[in-house]
Amino acid sequence: MEITANNPNRKSWLQVAQGCDFPIQNIPFGVFITKDDIITIGTRIGEYAIDLGAFHQLGYFNGIPLTDDIFMQDSLNDFIDDGRMTWRLVRNRIAEIFDINNTTLKDNKSHRDVIIFDVNEVEMLSPVDVGDFTDFFSSKAHAKNISKMFNLQNNSKEQNWLHMPLGYNERASSVVVSGTSIRRPYGQTLPADGLNPVFGPSNKLDMEVEMAFITTSANNFGDRILVNEAEEFIFGMVLLNDWSTRDVQKWESKPLGPFLSKSFASTISPWIVTLDALEPYRCKSAKQENLLPYLQLNTPKNTFDIKLNTFLETENGDLNLLSDSNFNNLYWSIAQQLAHQTVNGCNVRSGDLFGSGTISGKEEKSFGSLLELCWNEEKPITLKDGTKRTYLEDGDNVIIRGYCENEHGRIGFGKCTGKILPAIKYNLQ
Amino acid sequence: MEITANNPNRKSWLQVAQGCDFPIQNIPFGVFITKDDIITIGTRIGEYAIDLGAFHQLGYFNGIPLTDDIFMQDSLNDFIDDGRMTWRLVRNRIAEIFDINNTTLKDNKSHRDVIIFDVNEVEMLSPVDVGDFTDFFSSKAHAKNISKMFNLQNNSKEQNWLHMPLGYNERASSVVVSGTSIRRPYGQTLPADGLNPVFGPSNKLDMEVEMAFITTSANNFGDRILVNEAEEFIFGMVLLNDWSTRDVQKWESKPLGPFLSKSFASTISPWIVTLDALEPYRCKSAKQENLLPYLQLNTPKNTFDIKLNTFLETENGDLNLLSDSNFNNLYWSIAQQLAHQTVNGCNVRSGDLFGSGTISGKEEKSFGSLLELCWNEEKPITLKDGTKRTYLEDGDNVIIRGYCENEHGRIGFGKCTGKILPAIKYNLQ
Repeated sequence: MEITANNPNRKSWLQVAQGCDFPIQNIPFGVFITKDDIITIGTRIGEYAIDLGAFHQLGYFNGIPLTDDIFMQDSLNDFIDDGRMTWRLVRNRIAEIFDINNTTLKDNKSHRDVIIFDVNEVEMLSPVDVGDFTDFFSSKAHAKNISKMFNLQNNSKEQNWLHMPLGYNERASSVVVSGTSIRRPYGQTLPADGLNPVFGPSNKLDMEVEMAFITTSANNFGDRILVNEAEEFIFGMVLLNDWSTRDVQKWESKPLGPFLSKSFASTISPWIVTLDALEPYRCKSAKQENLLPYLQLNTPKNTFDIKLNTFLETENGDLNLLSDSNFNNLYWSIAQQLAHQTVNGCNVRSGDLFGSGTISGKEEKSFGSLLELCWNEEKPITLKDGTKRTYLEDGDNVIIRGYCENEHGRIGFGKCTGKILPAIKYNLQ
Repeated sequence: MEITANNPNRKSWLQVAQGCDFPIQNIPFGVFITKDDIITIGTRIGEYAIDLGAFHQLGYFNGIPLTDDIFMQDSLNDFIDDGRMTWRLVRNRIAEIFDINNTTLKDNKSHRDVIIFDVNEVEMLSPVDVGDFTDFFSSKAHAKNISKMFNLQNNSKEQNWLHMPLGYNERASSVVVSGTSIRRPYGQTLPADGLNPVFGPSNKLDMEVEMAFITTSANNFGDRILVNEAEEFIFGMVLLNDWSTRDVQKWESKPLGPFLSKSFASTISPWIVTLDALEPYRCKSAKQENLLPYLQLNTPKNTFDIKLNTFLETENGDLNLLSDSNFNNLYWSIAQQLAHQTVNGCNVRSGDLFGSGTISGKEEKSFGSLLELCWNEEKPITLKDGTKRTYLEDGDNVIIRGYCENEHGRIGFGKCTGKILPAIKYNLQ
């Protein structure tokens, strides 16, 4: 079925400013609370949040097989479970109804009043109820940086990296939506003298610039997903900041990998941009050799050109560009990640989240963490206000922005933000 | 409130054989489908499954604040969310109604017919919808065995083990209930020549004898649970077999820890035995020194005397005892595990699962994995039928049994079983 929603020439009767991430060609999906305290699934065009629960109730999806309450829910999991054909029909219909030449809703004020809200008047919630959260480790530059910094270059055990998209399980309960403040977490760390661990608020709180894809229910327990079919099961993508405490991570990670250094919080952007909407921005993925057959893709364009800009906003409002990266810096594609995840028969469900790992490019300005940008504290960053950073300070607001732009136009993900609050003060440390 | 359900002198009007895991002092919770295809939450006495949905509808919980449909659900998550006071009221009431001197239900045949089933006529389902699944690494003997086998003794990086209950996140989607067959999984492994990885069914499929506790919703995002209050948030325990592919694990685990070598399946026993029911079997936990204050317990008895016997059943029906261990072999207690998990503000939800890690004791016969029992293939086991094992073969059925027995009587967990099926044959490897 054609993705008519992607027509680059379409304009909407809703006003969309130049350079906005949400033209009528985007039509992402999210969950919000209206000012009347109604929780609904919705989409966004320009600065307008569109209540798809009301839109559906008023008959605008007539002819598309959808259950009555599919959009009147607090997560997209059930809608995502309906599968790609439904997602496409729904996006195409929304594009049609909001097309500048379609007067059906445009001329119906009473319907508009219950469907369309100012996006600043709604509160965005987490778009999915995350079942499982995997984080991959798929940027070659990031892996190389870590190896160089910690002298792991000659460790032959690390040679698995080129043969498969390494990953690990992360904590699903603490995935929060953009805008949620992040308390500086406590943890055990080993001081420089290396004698006895100490306990207290982390002194090395870092961001990780990532993206994540979200799946539909893809395979039964025991089955697997073939790499060349994997994208069929991917609903869309979000921005992800995988907060990390480097001091805790260093002390706890051997031999089982990161645990509490990651599980305190991971932030995702509220609007899921569908893989369909990203289609015009598809681009060549990394050249790979000697892959095992289960990871071999038939076509060369397996990633997307998504620009990622990350800013540190200080309390005076200064925006400091920290990182200028791109999703296409990744060595392993999302199809390879999903095929690898399921090759042992591990079942994937609707709403599962798969992070890319830190997205660093080769150039220093594209590094995706303060660990790399400040080279393990060797090269502090000087901000506009003259203060320096090696890691995040209380009050810092980290803002990741992601967007695609080419001759087809521009669509984007909006923002993924989180502000650091001071550690809670406890009597018992 | 007193746990009157634990009264060791109580007998039930339902027949309970000597040595049965489910006397009236146990009253565990599970989920099953009746022969009439009704899914319900239930409990078990002797060889009888008791439909708590029907029991509640017929008024036997009158006076206890419970929503009408709390037991008519396909998971215990909502009931567990009700908290310890409710669990205790419910268990006490069940004990009272099934007490040999109580004729209310005993003499009501029409009620008995819709409440009480032969346990062999119902199908047990997974008792909880697992939100997150953590696996700890809390047996000192197991950690020492791994260190010895792989020459890690002098690695100072491993010294974190004595300072905190190390753990990692596992996959929740592939947690299955006892009796589910386990397909031999595929994976990447590095052959002995160490040149290029190969892909195929694992040749080193192992079991891991574990137990796991299940929590209620315990803390908000950003908060923590104090170690001396942690048990209040633990509903109960199950047996756990954390299946592992050692060949895949060896190749994939550096630097992020085990991933696909564990995520294909983890099996839990169907009946959750409450912490209340385990109270008479509480015993001294390991002596620990130099703990950071957030892990220090005020009292010495922080674990439970739970005997764990693991058998390998061959296709001819022979039962071969593989391992004779005990839950009290663990160095880190469940309270310490939960306090550590949340010390960074990580939120814990109702239905979250926390595995102990492989439970090995000091003696060889108590080792909890074939990796240890056969000392990395150096010492194959000879079974009753004369065949040898270093790892699991297709057709092997692994059965973990767990029970408590002392002057108070005996209660148990029943069985946690899984039979190995041959790998699926694919055209594309």
